[in-house]
Amino acid sequence: MKLIRFGAEAAEKPGIQLANGTKIDVSAFGSDYNEDFFGNNGIEKLKTWLVTNQDSCPEIDDNVRLGAPLTRPSKIVCIGLNYAQHAAEAGMEVPKEPVLFFKSTTAMVGPNDDIMLPKGSTKTDWEVELAIVIGKKASYVEEEDVFDHIAGYVLHNDVSERAYQIERSGQWCKGKGCDTFAPIGPFIATTDEIEDPNNLNLWLKLNGEVMQNSSTSDFIFNVQQSISHISQFMTLLPGDIISTGTPFGVGLGLKPPVYLKAGDIVELGIEGLGTSKQKVVSFRSNL
Amino acid sequence: MKLIRFGAEAAEKPGIQLANGTKIDVSAFGSDYNEDFFGNNGIEKLKTWLVTNQDSCPEIDDNVRLGAPLTRPSKIVCIGLNYAQHAAEAGMEVPKEPVLFFKSTTAMVGPNDDIMLPKGSTKTDWEVELAIVIGKKASYVEEEDVFDHIAGYVLHNDVSERAYQIERSGQWCKGKGCDTFAPIGPFIATTDEIEDPNNLNLWLKLNGEVMQNSSTSDFIFNVQQSISHISQFMTLLPGDIISTGTPFGVGLGLKPPVYLKAGDIVELGIEGLGTSKQKVVSFRSNL
Repeated sequence: MKLIRFGAEAAEKPGIQLANGTKIDVSAFGSDYNEDFFGNNGIEKLKTWLVTNQDSCPEIDDNVRLGAPLTRPSKIVCIGLNYAQHAAEAGMEVPKEPVLFFKSTTAMVGPNDDIMLPKGSTKTDWEVELAIVIGKKASYVEEEDVFDHIAGYVLHNDVSERAYQIERSGQWCKGKGCDTFAPIGPFIATTDEIEDPNNLNLWLKLNGEVMQNSSTSDFIFNVQQSISHISQFMTLLPGDIISTGTPFGVGLGLKPPVYLKAGDIVELGIEGLGTSKQKVVSFRSNL
Repeated sequence: MKLIRFGAEAAEKPGIQLANGTKIDVSAFGSDYNEDFFGNNGIEKLKTWLVTNQDSCPEIDDNVRLGAPLTRPSKIVCIGLNYAQHAAEAGMEVPKEPVLFFKSTTAMVGPNDDIMLPKGSTKTDWEVELAIVIGKKASYVEEEDVFDHIAGYVLHNDVSERAYQIERSGQWCKGKGCDTFAPIGPFIATTDEIEDPNNLNLWLKLNGEVMQNSSTSDFIFNVQQSISHISQFMTLLPGDIISTGTPFGVGLGLKPPVYLKAGDIVELGIEGLGTSKQKVVSFRSNL
């Protein structure tokens, strides 16, 4: 099943993208895609509900905006330097165990919303990533049990301001959580749709040119190792997002480096998880 | 006004601690202390409601458990190395601008709940800190406007596992977000109760012995500078917690270092913000 959310910003409703690509409104089911939904077997309940109710669900027009396909989670935990070639281009060593950092959840936007450059930013960069949505509370989870704790997978552009991340007195979170820095979606694919999350092609284009093109089979730490590791340090809640790191090909690694500027178009995709497309725009106050 | 929450874990109700120390149940007001409460003038509305309803609010017995005095926020942002003497004891340079890191919100517990040592932990440490509760959405806020965005202040023990924080492949969040690592409270003092947050004594005792004893007047970056700075990198929401760093006297800085062990008693306090007391216990599964 493919979970989507659609409608105006901050007023999104839950929907489903069917196998034939048609999108339908399932708000009559009565629950948004939130912690309670994921933690209380919402996916199975929704499947059951659809058996008798799908035909009465309104279709969603293709030009309706998509939001991020879940509500604001308790946290977005990201793994840094999880592809060897990317660690090299960032000038960093391959880590002995997963590097973790948080992304502010206020950075979340829909898959095709604009990326807004922060005020004065000169080093905003792209990062295509496979993100995992937690389905069941996870604390000290063994690797072999990890898949019991996953609700699904989703495409994520882990937009990053490199000056803020690296040159501003330590800890990467400064360059990761600016507003609009987490375009998520188009949909969450539930686990039955993805045979092996550790073997998915992923790519990103800037203005039509391929910049990143890799496979999650190049992970240093695979999905099981990553989730098990994180769960040793904090409890993951249903609906939490884990972003698994980006492959080679970010702007920071080019010689000379290339960063996003207003008017740029970023497109990205992962096998089985669809594509997203963001326009880069200049800073504007959100108040 | 002093906001408290009381009752069993995950079932706390909102209350008020009166000037004479009596605690009353204000759940009849109809709102918990959450993002909606802080963002929609809840403090003023509650004050007005109390004028006619205070006498009918039930008293809370002194042996009822206190929870953290607000619901789970969108984020807990912490400032590292914000006192010069503490940076020295941690063997780190005084930063040129605030160091920021996140604490997982799943670490939050009540002010007098147990601190649980993570599985295998040998370097769990204490940190008394002044925490700020955001009252109004904050993005690119100028220093002179910061106080318009603050709802109140609260005592926080920023419990930290030093091996996880420093020795485990970078980024401090690994050592900051373990379950029970954020005892918060006893109460949120609204801004009218605290004349100057940049001039408050704060202290921490381990088994009755004073370990930390300082004043927020020793901040490297004061409350206005800190909040303004953070708001350049992410949007702060009502109910978000900003923890302002700890002064000299943590276990890591002692020669030899001293870390928490099961049975230890930690007590801490800040002028005008009350005191809290935690017992340290061994790891036990929470599943």
